[in-house]
Amino acid sequence: MTNIFRHLSAFFVLLLLLANGSSPTAAYDSRPKAKNVIFMIMDGTNSDVLALSRWYKGSALALDGMMTGGVRTYSLRSAITDSAAAGTALATGRKTLVDHIGMIPIFPEEGKPYTAYPVPNILEAAERKGLSTGIVSTSPVQHATPAAFSAHVNHRNQFDDIAEQQVYQGMEVVLGGGKAWLKRDDKVKSRPDGENLISVIQKKGYEYVTTRKELLQSSGEKIWGSFAREDIAYELDRKKLNPNQPSLAEMTEKAIQTLSKNDKGFFLLVEGSKVDWAAHKNDPVGMISEVLSFDEAVQKALQFAKKDRQTLVIAVADHGNSGLTMGNRSTNHSYASEPKEHFIEPLKKAHLTVTGAVSQLRKDRSNLKEVLKSYGLNSLSHKEYNLVKKSKHPEKEMAALLSKRAKIGFTTTGHTGEDVFLFSYGPGKPTGLVENTDLPKSVCQTLGLKLQSSYQDGIQFYKKRGFKTTIYRKKEGNPELVVQKGGQTIRYPVNKNIRFVDGKEETLSAVNLFNGTHFYIGLPNR
Amino acid sequence: MTNIFRHLSAFFVLLLLLANGSSPTAAYDSRPKAKNVIFMIMDGTNSDVLALSRWYKGSALALDGMMTGGVRTYSLRSAITDSAAAGTALATGRKTLVDHIGMIPIFPEEGKPYTAYPVPNILEAAERKGLSTGIVSTSPVQHATPAAFSAHVNHRNQFDDIAEQQVYQGMEVVLGGGKAWLKRDDKVKSRPDGENLISVIQKKGYEYVTTRKELLQSSGEKIWGSFAREDIAYELDRKKLNPNQPSLAEMTEKAIQTLSKNDKGFFLLVEGSKVDWAAHKNDPVGMISEVLSFDEAVQKALQFAKKDRQTLVIAVADHGNSGLTMGNRSTNHSYASEPKEHFIEPLKKAHLTVTGAVSQLRKDRSNLKEVLKSYGLNSLSHKEYNLVKKSKHPEKEMAALLSKRAKIGFTTTGHTGEDVFLFSYGPGKPTGLVENTDLPKSVCQTLGLKLQSSYQDGIQFYKKRGFKTTIYRKKEGNPELVVQKGGQTIRYPVNKNIRFVDGKEETLSAVNLFNGTHFYIGLPNR
Repeated sequence: MTNIFRHLSAFFVLLLLLANGSSPTAAYDSRPKAKNVIFMIMDGTNSDVLALSRWYKGSALALDGMMTGGVRTYSLRSAITDSAAAGTALATGRKTLVDHIGMIPIFPEEGKPYTAYPVPNILEAAERKGLSTGIVSTSPVQHATPAAFSAHVNHRNQFDDIAEQQVYQGMEVVLGGGKAWLKRDDKVKSRPDGENLISVIQKKGYEYVTTRKELLQSSGEKIWGSFAREDIAYELDRKKLNPNQPSLAEMTEKAIQTLSKNDKGFFLLVEGSKVDWAAHKNDPVGMISEVLSFDEAVQKALQFAKKDRQTLVIAVADHGNSGLTMGNRSTNHSYASEPKEHFIEPLKKAHLTVTGAVSQLRKDRSNLKEVLKSYGLNSLSHKEYNLVKKSKHPEKEMAALLSKRAKIGFTTTGHTGEDVFLFSYGPGKPTGLVENTDLPKSVCQTLGLKLQSSYQDGIQFYKKRGFKTTIYRKKEGNPELVVQKGGQTIRYPVNKNIRFVDGKEETLSAVNLFNGTHFYIGLPNR
Repeated sequence: MTNIFRHLSAFFVLLLLLANGSSPTAAYDSRPKAKNVIFMIMDGTNSDVLALSRWYKGSALALDGMMTGGVRTYSLRSAITDSAAAGTALATGRKTLVDHIGMIPIFPEEGKPYTAYPVPNILEAAERKGLSTGIVSTSPVQHATPAAFSAHVNHRNQFDDIAEQQVYQGMEVVLGGGKAWLKRDDKVKSRPDGENLISVIQKKGYEYVTTRKELLQSSGEKIWGSFAREDIAYELDRKKLNPNQPSLAEMTEKAIQTLSKNDKGFFLLVEGSKVDWAAHKNDPVGMISEVLSFDEAVQKALQFAKKDRQTLVIAVADHGNSGLTMGNRSTNHSYASEPKEHFIEPLKKAHLTVTGAVSQLRKDRSNLKEVLKSYGLNSLSHKEYNLVKKSKHPEKEMAALLSKRAKIGFTTTGHTGEDVFLFSYGPGKPTGLVENTDLPKSVCQTLGLKLQSSYQDGIQFYKKRGFKTTIYRKKEGNPELVVQKGGQTIRYPVNKNIRFVDGKEETLSAVNLFNGTHFYIGLPNR
């Protein structure tokens, strides 16, 4: 069809030119343009769990109406990606190494230290062009995928650095988990720098909310919602165990409402983070819970996009995980006579995910029967019951027992290397089989963005100009680049978009970054 | 994009109408039309094996350029389909039960015998509209998928019936395996009816060929090629062990050359049959061999379609099989640091598929080492070697050992229930997530075909008209419907498109069918 339409539209443009003599430039700039982009990632979701979730739901997914192709997911050096390299590919258009967030390796000469440099991402490019931007996730917002759209660190585990960069990134909306990294938290040993980012967030004019109710009542131009110390509960568990947390769909809807106040448009990243987490546990109930939760968020995005008509919605998995299949060794021969109920009914008996169920287990396991029942395991053999009772990993045993009943197979508790489905809707939507790195290019094209770096290698920059440069490392972290010449001292604190010129604060075009060897600095905003 | 183009093209049509006053009918009939359709099925192929095959090949697949969506594969009563029900869905647009070929069940009232009735398929509809038609497969052509496009039987195992129906179906090109069912063959106990279908094929004017060389030299308007008693060798084995057999790409190219002589157009069904067979054996080498072989055939189809510009090419898997993943339990934690070589290099050591390798194993297994080596297993531990040596199923053990080395996981030796990728190119191509039953509708639309049944329930038809009806069952099979009234006797032999009116042969619009209770008859060609 595309071919035919291409011909039609080319001819049409020609007619138009003949008719009104408009400039040829217009003719060549006929690509559809969007005002807004909603980029949605379901982490670690293979084709099979989409099919299974559809059967579980009993009707079409919102995603079904926007399937347009497939995505290759491998990272720079591995046929199977992690979420950091995948997020970086989707955010920056560059393949990178495992664990790297918005950073691309420079492979060192022998004997030289390894290094990686920051590359710009589409959220930053949108923000710089005056669009409103935001991130939404059910994981801590510092987790790999949302981090890749809002931070630059060598290792995804640098939650303290990521959190601080996000606070100074200039986004209008941040909603998700991860409160523990905003202010010192003894349990996760966060913020050795002692910074209180919550008060920074409030000083920066965000409406700071921490419950579902506060979120739904919020009406600010900028909202920061932090609804869990770490991750937000699985959707199935949230309703029962954490009703004060919002759903992904509610966060998505509020983000769209807030960001769409900007006439210049917006870029929003939404991650359904925990399909992946459940997949790592081989818990089909958790996986379905999170696919359907993600799909409700997609529904909200589509509703907006269909009404607005200027919004591109992209939805993709960043990679497969777990190798889940409908069908396993027990269906080697019976597969063609297995009605959907054989797969779905055992799963529907579970009222909680395996994580939610086991979270209710007492230390002495005296309520094991109830816990098993809440996960749909109310007809265990004596042997099976004892297996769980004595297990060091009851989650693992329980998930395996339910999967067996539901005839679900898994190949791994890790990620997998297949191409995943691409879903897209709206002006400039990508189609066909693409590289994950092609998707940010589609976003740039439709929004008219350019991925230009705002970073300078600070030491190089100032040495050339005759400054003395020092990286000042403090015990509690937060190194600074200090540069001096004549009587002038300029200090660049890490992870913040500011510098101090002889003690006077100035705002920079990007947050300062330190990768262990190089100090990258933003340029002053003019 | 589609939306924008729809607007553009509507406006363009309006302009055109204003410009030259052509009739409004033309404006409404703006759907793209194809002259030819090449419908290609890779049996039992999931997303993961496509990605794995692409890495193995080291460059893009022909399929990559034509990915346009996904396909739901479930059958009428099972969440996981077999190839018979899947083939029937793809050929007729109707979901059916496991094992049924072109037959749809009527669910009986209590106590009444179960029955199923024939439904027309797109190949028959094309043939009836005067297009040339053909089937190509690496399996016996009587196997489920090609059968679903050219026969109607209650059970896919009825190879004798399927073979005879195909010979009387009126196709111009039939290329594949399955010679054993054309003429009595003691090994497979075929043709208890004693019919020699090879001589029928020759009488009907086909150029009958049995080797690659004969095929390449053939130039008839009608070609029947039967290159193996049963299936054609896996592509990797074929080159070494069966060089007299043609490749799927060679058969496809010859079929296109032959069928495209018809100015009215053609419909061709091509099946890469044995991805599925290798998947049932959990043999990654066999699966890759057949995906790449299929992809070469797709390349031939695309070459024709791109030049011709009036050809729709559809390529799909009929279902998943085996749950193959890149990544398994050994990569639970290492997945993100596994370069493609870790998966590919062990597989590249195999010079034969597991089937090909084991076909060379002597009864006393004295050449086991060589056989193992031909399958890339030249560094087995003593324990592993003995495992294979003593195994009743050396294929199974060998495939498992190689998969372990290649970090490949499997969940089952049966089919799986996920959505599969849709590939399409050319006028009227289907896009998005579709049901398998939607694809023949796309074919009908672009070729202007209607799926109208040519069948009558013979007993009902003649009883109404006052005939005495008898189903005459012979010991050797081949029942006949015999109807009598006054002095007239009409005999309808099963599986043939003919009847005898008082001994005089007449050609019918379709082959006669017997489903065990009902005798379906074609109508006389007028």
